[in-house]
Amino acid sequence: MFKKILIANRGEIALRVIRTCKEMGIKTVAVYSTADKDSLHVRFADEAVNIGPAPSNQSYLKIPHIISAAEITNADAIHPGYGFLSENAEFSRVCEEYGIKFIGASPGMIDKMGDKATAKATMKEAGVPTIPGSEGLLDSVEEGIVLANEMKYPVILKATAGGGGRGMRIVNDDSGFKKAWDDAKMESAAAFGNDGLYLEKFIEEPRHVEIQVVGDSNGKACHLSERDCSIQRRHQKLVEETPSPAINQEIRDKMGAAAVKAAEAIGYEGAGTVEFLLDKNGDFYFMEMNTRIQVEHPITEEVTDFDLIKEQIKVAAGEPISGKNYYPKLYAMECRINAEDPRHGFRPSPGKITNLHLPGGHGVRVDSHVYAGYSIPPNYDSMIAKLIVSGQSREEVIVRMKRALEEFVIEGIKTTIPFHIKLMSDEGFKSGNFTTKYLETFDFSDL
Amino acid sequence: MFKKILIANRGEIALRVIRTCKEMGIKTVAVYSTADKDSLHVRFADEAVNIGPAPSNQSYLKIPHIISAAEITNADAIHPGYGFLSENAEFSRVCEEYGIKFIGASPGMIDKMGDKATAKATMKEAGVPTIPGSEGLLDSVEEGIVLANEMKYPVILKATAGGGGRGMRIVNDDSGFKKAWDDAKMESAAAFGNDGLYLEKFIEEPRHVEIQVVGDSNGKACHLSERDCSIQRRHQKLVEETPSPAINQEIRDKMGAAAVKAAEAIGYEGAGTVEFLLDKNGDFYFMEMNTRIQVEHPITEEVTDFDLIKEQIKVAAGEPISGKNYYPKLYAMECRINAEDPRHGFRPSPGKITNLHLPGGHGVRVDSHVYAGYSIPPNYDSMIAKLIVSGQSREEVIVRMKRALEEFVIEGIKTTIPFHIKLMSDEGFKSGNFTTKYLETFDFSDL
Repeated sequence: MFKKILIANRGEIALRVIRTCKEMGIKTVAVYSTADKDSLHVRFADEAVNIGPAPSNQSYLKIPHIISAAEITNADAIHPGYGFLSENAEFSRVCEEYGIKFIGASPGMIDKMGDKATAKATMKEAGVPTIPGSEGLLDSVEEGIVLANEMKYPVILKATAGGGGRGMRIVNDDSGFKKAWDDAKMESAAAFGNDGLYLEKFIEEPRHVEIQVVGDSNGKACHLSERDCSIQRRHQKLVEETPSPAINQEIRDKMGAAAVKAAEAIGYEGAGTVEFLLDKNGDFYFMEMNTRIQVEHPITEEVTDFDLIKEQIKVAAGEPISGKNYYPKLYAMECRINAEDPRHGFRPSPGKITNLHLPGGHGVRVDSHVYAGYSIPPNYDSMIAKLIVSGQSREEVIVRMKRALEEFVIEGIKTTIPFHIKLMSDEGFKSGNFTTKYLETFDFSDL
Repeated sequence: MFKKILIANRGEIALRVIRTCKEMGIKTVAVYSTADKDSLHVRFADEAVNIGPAPSNQSYLKIPHIISAAEITNADAIHPGYGFLSENAEFSRVCEEYGIKFIGASPGMIDKMGDKATAKATMKEAGVPTIPGSEGLLDSVEEGIVLANEMKYPVILKATAGGGGRGMRIVNDDSGFKKAWDDAKMESAAAFGNDGLYLEKFIEEPRHVEIQVVGDSNGKACHLSERDCSIQRRHQKLVEETPSPAINQEIRDKMGAAAVKAAEAIGYEGAGTVEFLLDKNGDFYFMEMNTRIQVEHPITEEVTDFDLIKEQIKVAAGEPISGKNYYPKLYAMECRINAEDPRHGFRPSPGKITNLHLPGGHGVRVDSHVYAGYSIPPNYDSMIAKLIVSGQSREEVIVRMKRALEEFVIEGIKTTIPFHIKLMSDEGFKSGNFTTKYLETFDFSDL
């Protein structure tokens, strides 16, 4: 087992990793920018090294500084957290060269999964469902109809030269195909001087459902079921939950098997997440694989009892996994508390936290690096806390989350708490029946 | 279901009950003494009524004040928490008279379990193991030996007129009986002018293990397994854990069945705890039954996922229980954080909390009514927080507890945190092999 781990990150995830290291008896090294000198991750680590000024490219993204910090402190492994260098193949490669274990994916895996086209091709080859489409351009309406029936309606015709929605037509059945074809051809010829069309399956009312996987150095992988992250604003996840209200055990098993297949296809080692788009028929399609720990990993911990950071560290140290899959024994949900003003377009609200009171009690977990008197620097992402709630049913989790949100006191700055409180009373959200578009029509004006 | 519950208590348990009421959509009324006007339970309740000045007998123990508060706020039920009026038969009776549901035991049950002799007799009749003893005085050595063999050695001979350990002899086998008998006879004759002796089983190296039960209004009861509360100082529990490191599934089943028998024998309704002394052979004996929620109930919640306050409220509202028993799916431990100076005889340390930082992360729960800037009044018990930790093994729970204790910042007063930190590294404690006497030889001087 490692003796000393350097955490190449900041904020709550740095603290999260330090906590597990302490529990495992592993020494920790924090790195920090000058702007973060008063951070809790600096205070709680056994050692701390200043790696430069605030802009990330001068500190948290500066590979030589981080490697130097590891060398002078004799760290034998680096945990990259999420964001920053966590999916940087060069960083993974440099760690390898310096004989420091990178607690994450190998450079090859990051390369394979980092590029979307390569990832999709790799997954398709491995037999993981990807969004079906024509191979190149269509030659005729007839060819298109055959293909559309193969991949099931609705489908979308797209201009090969297209963009901004022009030259695109959604087609729902055979009878509408010819007209859509003609319209799209005409529109794209007029707009782009090129009437080439290709076909893709149209994912109606998609949900974002992802599978947590863990692979070991023997090439074996398992999954820890799903997280539903459909509550998003501009592709930023705001609330995550497990189990997903949109899937049943049959889909869970299929999606889990697909994720394990994806991980094993690339010999994945470590904790990773395979993200899928789920359509309203229960069919799902590979979106991307994140070769790192995710922000929302605690909800999986709450329902499976695993410490995922511990699993990451154990696997990185060469320990094998059992190969068994794990299923949710409870319900759990996470609200991301950001220093943002939800009433005014979620604009950042950095500054000093003048008063802080954390919620507590049964089923309530808080992961946060802030404290009363802490000044949130304007240089980084605005997440200041994750409020994680578990319970025996989705209904219990929602009322408990609302109760905990109402107890949460953060003064001196604006936060997203009022948005979350409203969401927990929102009938659409409570029904469990929503898509990734749900917040597009949500009323933020009365928060 | 009740519409409004008055909580006849203060501190963390008042807040605990309010939290569950909020989650159940039930309105709450706090009552408070003048000394508690800035308490969180006052702030978080829907309504709050001042019931008098600080001494408890002027407020929290003042039945007419509490009933008046319930009447003026139209509360249809009262939750008494623990301590104060929670096991007061008169209070239960007055609530009944005023048509307010007392969320606790009936006056008859409290009477039966409140008096130790009556409780022991009731339990013996119901077939629950009680500490065996002779019926009255022994007539001869021979009678004593027969009885000692029935109840199994070791036994203790006690002078009927005795006290202060005089006229008492522990006997380990038949061969030692005659000498012990003669010595005790002589000693008690000399000391008290009365050489009458009686016999009781001697409980060697006892552990305190208790069973959580829930009974419903149909006379049915179930258990939620045990809590081990052997870490005590002067009969005050400081640390509790579940499962007990001292029992196996066979003893758990036996002890659980005995507790259910105890509850059903008196038609017990509500949440209660049957406390047993466990000897080193795995035999156990009824000590007492607490007809209320216990301080340490959260560890049972963590390993069974039940909200015990919710179960109390549901049963009080007439809902039936399933009758199924529940077993620990995890490990959990609670440290009681008291405003006391453990280095100086645990003397109380009331005063203002100038800085507060609560621990967080995976497996960590805090139940507390204090906040930064809060002044702990000198009038009440000194418990200011319960730190509850859960995990997949006892070892994981202990390292996690230590980690959480080290994160816990409470400035301005002395607390028992340093004691708990030392205990979590103590080999005797870590072995799981300790009795209720363990802290008698513990070194508190280096805290």
